[in-house]
Amino acid sequence: MTERVVLAYSGGLDTSVAIGWIAEETGAEVVAVAIDCGQGGEDLDVIRKRALDCGAVEAVVADARDEFANEYCVPALQANALYMDRYPLVSALSRPLIVKHLADAARYHNATMVAHGCTGKGNDQVRFEAGLAALFPELKVLAPVRDSGMTRDKAIAFAAEKGLPIDVTKKSPYSIDQNLFGRAVETGFLEDIWNGPIEDVYDYTQNPAEERPADELVISFTAGVPTAIDGKELTPLQIIEELNRRAGAQGIGRIDMVEDRLVGIKSREIYEAPGAIALIAAHQELENVTVERELARFKRGVDQRWGELVYDGLWFSPLKKALEGFIVEANQAVTGDIRMVLHGGRAVVTGRRSEASLYDYELATYDTGDTYDQSLARGFIDIWSMPAKIASLRDHKLS
Amino acid sequence: MTERVVLAYSGGLDTSVAIGWIAEETGAEVVAVAIDCGQGGEDLDVIRKRALDCGAVEAVVADARDEFANEYCVPALQANALYMDRYPLVSALSRPLIVKHLADAARYHNATMVAHGCTGKGNDQVRFEAGLAALFPELKVLAPVRDSGMTRDKAIAFAAEKGLPIDVTKKSPYSIDQNLFGRAVETGFLEDIWNGPIEDVYDYTQNPAEERPADELVISFTAGVPTAIDGKELTPLQIIEELNRRAGAQGIGRIDMVEDRLVGIKSREIYEAPGAIALIAAHQELENVTVERELARFKRGVDQRWGELVYDGLWFSPLKKALEGFIVEANQAVTGDIRMVLHGGRAVVTGRRSEASLYDYELATYDTGDTYDQSLARGFIDIWSMPAKIASLRDHKLS
Amino acid sequence: MTERVVLAYSGGLDTSVAIGWIAEETGAEVVAVAIDCGQGGEDLDVIRKRALDCGAVEAVVADARDEFANEYCVPALQANALYMDRYPLVSALSRPLIVKHLADAARYHNATMVAHGCTGKGNDQVRFEAGLAALFPELKVLAPVRDSGMTRDKAIAFAAEKGLPIDVTKKSPYSIDQNLFGRAVETGFLEDIWNGPIEDVYDYTQNPAEERPADELVISFTAGVPTAIDGKELTPLQIIEELNRRAGAQGIGRIDMVEDRLVGIKSREIYEAPGAIALIAAHQELENVTVERELARFKRGVDQRWGELVYDGLWFSPLKKALEGFIVEANQAVTGDIRMVLHGGRAVVTGRRSEASLYDYELATYDTGDTYDQSLARGFIDIWSMPAKIASLRDHKLS
Amino acid sequence: MTERVVLAYSGGLDTSVAIGWIAEETGAEVVAVAIDCGQGGEDLDVIRKRALDCGAVEAVVADARDEFANEYCVPALQANALYMDRYPLVSALSRPLIVKHLADAARYHNATMVAHGCTGKGNDQVRFEAGLAALFPELKVLAPVRDSGMTRDKAIAFAAEKGLPIDVTKKSPYSIDQNLFGRAVETGFLEDIWNGPIEDVYDYTQNPAEERPADELVISFTAGVPTAIDGKELTPLQIIEELNRRAGAQGIGRIDMVEDRLVGIKSREIYEAPGAIALIAAHQELENVTVERELARFKRGVDQRWGELVYDGLWFSPLKKALEGFIVEANQAVTGDIRMVLHGGRAVVTGRRSEASLYDYELATYDTGDTYDQSLARGFIDIWSMPAKIASLRDHKLS
Repeated sequence: MTERVVLAYSGGLDTSVAIGWIAEETGAEVVAVAIDCGQGGEDLDVIRKRALDCGAVEAVVADARDEFANEYCVPALQANALYMDRYPLVSALSRPLIVKHLADAARYHNATMVAHGCTGKGNDQVRFEAGLAALFPELKVLAPVRDSGMTRDKAIAFAAEKGLPIDVTKKSPYSIDQNLFGRAVETGFLEDIWNGPIEDVYDYTQNPAEERPADELVISFTAGVPTAIDGKELTPLQIIEELNRRAGAQGIGRIDMVEDRLVGIKSREIYEAPGAIALIAAHQELENVTVERELARFKRGVDQRWGELVYDGLWFSPLKKALEGFIVEANQAVTGDIRMVLHGGRAVVTGRRSEASLYDYELATYDTGDTYDQSLARGFIDIWSMPAKIASLRDHKLS
Repeated sequence: MTERVVLAYSGGLDTSVAIGWIAEETGAEVVAVAIDCGQGGEDLDVIRKRALDCGAVEAVVADARDEFANEYCVPALQANALYMDRYPLVSALSRPLIVKHLADAARYHNATMVAHGCTGKGNDQVRFEAGLAALFPELKVLAPVRDSGMTRDKAIAFAAEKGLPIDVTKKSPYSIDQNLFGRAVETGFLEDIWNGPIEDVYDYTQNPAEERPADELVISFTAGVPTAIDGKELTPLQIIEELNRRAGAQGIGRIDMVEDRLVGIKSREIYEAPGAIALIAAHQELENVTVERELARFKRGVDQRWGELVYDGLWFSPLKKALEGFIVEANQAVTGDIRMVLHGGRAVVTGRRSEASLYDYELATYDTGDTYDQSLARGFIDIWSMPAKIASLRDHKLS
Repeated sequence: MTERVVLAYSGGLDTSVAIGWIAEETGAEVVAVAIDCGQGGEDLDVIRKRALDCGAVEAVVADARDEFANEYCVPALQANALYMDRYPLVSALSRPLIVKHLADAARYHNATMVAHGCTGKGNDQVRFEAGLAALFPELKVLAPVRDSGMTRDKAIAFAAEKGLPIDVTKKSPYSIDQNLFGRAVETGFLEDIWNGPIEDVYDYTQNPAEERPADELVISFTAGVPTAIDGKELTPLQIIEELNRRAGAQGIGRIDMVEDRLVGIKSREIYEAPGAIALIAAHQELENVTVERELARFKRGVDQRWGELVYDGLWFSPLKKALEGFIVEANQAVTGDIRMVLHGGRAVVTGRRSEASLYDYELATYDTGDTYDQSLARGFIDIWSMPAKIASLRDHKLS
Repeated sequence: MTERVVLAYSGGLDTSVAIGWIAEETGAEVVAVAIDCGQGGEDLDVIRKRALDCGAVEAVVADARDEFANEYCVPALQANALYMDRYPLVSALSRPLIVKHLADAARYHNATMVAHGCTGKGNDQVRFEAGLAALFPELKVLAPVRDSGMTRDKAIAFAAEKGLPIDVTKKSPYSIDQNLFGRAVETGFLEDIWNGPIEDVYDYTQNPAEERPADELVISFTAGVPTAIDGKELTPLQIIEELNRRAGAQGIGRIDMVEDRLVGIKSREIYEAPGAIALIAAHQELENVTVERELARFKRGVDQRWGELVYDGLWFSPLKKALEGFIVEANQAVTGDIRMVLHGGRAVVTGRRSEASLYDYELATYDTGDTYDQSLARGFIDIWSMPAKIASLRDHKLS
């Protein structure tokens, strides 16, 4: 029986060419798998048809937007996941989702190989291959762009030679990856890190500097999961989409940074993640209201490690599962409403209310009604500062 | 000989009354100590004279703005210090500086006691007393507002009775603490955490929503210390002042948060820190360019602990000193220029350049000139993902 | 109706006197609560009768040894809990158990107060009061030894005056706390930290230096819970008891250390915990075999924080619950057998076997059968060392 | 001019053969570099002569024992470095020392290549190559055993064919690496992790179970550096040697563990490190006496990361340097004497004394002379437990 390869298929030039390229190289049949994780663009049916036209024996397409929102974006939100304190892990979240669908398709179609179109210097190759190693280690991985010299020029020549139904004339100057949770852009002139981005690189967000009226909304959470906007119950997918629209219209969520890749180098990245950034800001402030101090302090380190691990391609790893044991428990009481003003590139929390609030007006107020017993302070301070005081006495004695 | 008390003196109602109140309560002479850490307001000589008029036997005033900038704000910047990821420690930084001057004055004036005007439910009492415990543990601490019932009403009555030269009629609705690094505001209506702040609470910052032209500048750092703006060499004090002015004019650095106090409660705080927020954003991005990945990852935890420790009043503690052993070393290569646009409440980095850059164009580029050896990737990925893969195989076998 | 006080009752002099002392001081009725957490000594009925004879209106006794083993010692084992890398939290584990029974008894008997016999400079007062604050914050806490001058001399006089049925003549030179998980000893001559302990301070352990034959056993775990010794299924309580006996006979588990108390001072402590130390050694090595590397590395920090939190009296805190979310997940695969030799004060693992093992003979061996692909190494090493290499090149260039 | 290769030379079969093997393979001249880091065995001159006899154009030998003790073992001690809480990093410490000498020799002899005899599945290849990447990245690395098929059988045949002066008949069943700080043993029958080690695998330590008199000594430290035994000033090298002898004679420092290698697998390792284990135990207890609580708690995480980094081959990395900024500062007050009994496989601290002690008898004692103010406790406890208490009230309200 002819061997089969499952290919992560996007519909674009590289992976369309890869169908035939891999078939020639391996003699295997290619099953194309295209996943909608909210990247927009062409209809799944169009993509499906193109895969078949390019020579795939099967083309699997799946609308995984709800799955992506519920099982990938929501955990990231509960971890306030910002790699290097900035980047909401857009591509790093979608890769394990795609891997899961590839592994499922490989099982269904009895494939022995799997292929992706990544280069050899990015993070995504690691996310694909580390994910596959965890979910279906027996699969052999093909990476034609990285391992068998399928450069862009060769791909264009191949497409012309085979008469593939792909328009190779539209050449974007940008290398783009986008999904429900955000959009990443790389391009030549930004590889000079002294150059600033131009308006043209952005698509999910309007120019924050343009004048427009502010937008105010209330986001509701239950146990750290977003459940409603302005009192209207919505799914996580709907909430992220609405916030992408509304926060994007206000220019929120643009990120320009130099980033530490897993593969050893620093790179310059432009991201747009209007919904993600607004949601994380709201979730963090609701945590401030509902999460106890020592838990909140420790959670920062757990959240950081979660983000690094996912960035580093280790979504399907024992540590991630254990970190989520912590994070889910820590989100149990993160329930309530956050009022937020979206305006001029800023998502600003202006109000919070929660049945699970740990803010106690009567303890906090300086007005009538104060119930805080100030006579406790002296004993607390003396014991609190005692270790450092004894150390200080020691140091003075010795110096 | 009559005993002496050193009093942390601000020139305001409470500490002016405290001079006489403490004298009556203890029979001791009061030495007032007023420190300029950039809080603005009255001239030091005016404050000095008022202290004497209110009955102080001595009034020490000191312009400690450069000391505050160099020895307190710069270390905070090198630690990117943001308590709960938001608050740049404004008051928490000035208290140890004041403590140091109080301890020096107490030694000089042979005082046996020290007094402050803090209440019993805030953090500042801890910062004063923990600092004094470290620097001069033999001093007895007096806290008339907290411990001997010196309420505002009683203070006003005392001032009237003694004819103190204080205007008790201007009653601000706000409780304010401010210095070079920022400004903190608390007030009754904001104790309802669902209420948003009004424009009236702000002083260091203009309304970010107002239209105005953007402001672009280049900040230079040497080993993590800011040294110039737009190529003009300046002291840290001058840089923070200029950024307060320019970033403040753009509405940058407003913070509205629910915060975990050390004394066990959550409180609602409004801060303005235009210069601090702009500087930290610049410093962080220069770290992204110049600090190696594993160092950067570990430094986040060190920075967080530094911020907690300082917030918690433990400036003069062995752990802070050791953390700074790490932080100073980590800043050795944080040298270079950051170009930043200040506009509409946002301080956005648009360019970075550095002789100490670890960003390597030739490794990072996808254009001609790429020197990255992509054939290394496969070996890396296979070994990188091996532990999780083996665990995954185990889990599948067992389930 | 007369108010009621629930008293943590040990049967000893202090708490026996406290029954009458508290009754006199408050006019309340005293309900004595004695909990067996494996401390040995007198029969619960004897203790119960003594409480009543000393004036308690009710005396509640409970054999909580299984509860203690299952819900307090097992979580400690799963966290490899060793405060300061040494102390297995003996007393810190029993206090929350006692607190839980006190709170239950207070509800049942409609008490409004709760009393304990701790002094004001130890950790146990914090563990009692912090636990009660979490479980039953409305209770007023009485601490006669700390707060109302009930010194040992006064207690003896009180006992004599009231004719209480307590033998006040046996005066041990040692202050001892013991339970199923270990035994703590303090005494005057050891407060000089240059003095070594003498054989007389020990009770759970024989002298490790004495000659005796070694003892070998196999401990089995399921998901981090000890389930059998030498193939015989036992409860955690039975396993800890058997190991206390067998490891104690070999002199295992003696600890002599200077320790950081929560209340600000360092103290000198002697502990014996033969079963705990042997079990933790076995559990750690089974983790080495069954827990993936990155999970194992992060777990060390989680374990440390769990131990600090419990030592610090915060058993009933949100952070502990979230840490256990991590720890329980991390223990899911900690299943298998550990062979151990107990001898001469040492508990030494000599073998491990597990269906959940991640040790793969074929990958690890240097003999025939090696399946490890050594050609992967070069790519891995080059990318692994790239960030430090680039930093090194930068440093050489600049210096 | 003929190219030159610098070879890490041990004097054994593999690296002796490698001299000729590399010369044949590359046409280059081989400079052999042998470093004495306390591994014992043959005289350096014998090794030097053998290298030349085997065809090296130059043979560099260096007694680096003091350098190894001072610059590699002492920092490890200050970090209490125990990988996975057990392994004192024996081989991981010597590799960077050897790398430094290789890089120096390569510069001196104008080499363009460097060679080592490591296999492709161990950690040492990473330590060599990552170290060289940092110190001399231009060198090309040769690893004949890993990369060009130089198996043991082929090496023996090569030696016979070329008549190399090496005895190939003594075949040890053990794979051994040893130096001043300890000894590592791997062998076939121990690759079954259920098998226990036999007495024959050990060389640095006597059987701990044999009866012999105890040995008591006092180790003195200054700022975390060991400086004397029993009052006699010695160098770190002398101290480690004496402790290897005396602790080794008591069977101290045997380790048997399953370990997480950097290269993705778990392996079974036997170590002996009598001096290291005794010194770390002493240093830790002196830290308990002289290091303030919060510093000690944070230092555990820093120490762990230092150990992982060194184990992982990143000795010459920016993070290690910054961690040492912390560690050296934290050791400033670690000065004093530790009395220790070495006996029956145990190194037990029995006394500590220090001018820098933070243990305060008067605060700690329960006897006359107690200066601890117990009235402080209540205020401390109430504020300490307040956050968890408020969270508990919230949870009860909601459930």
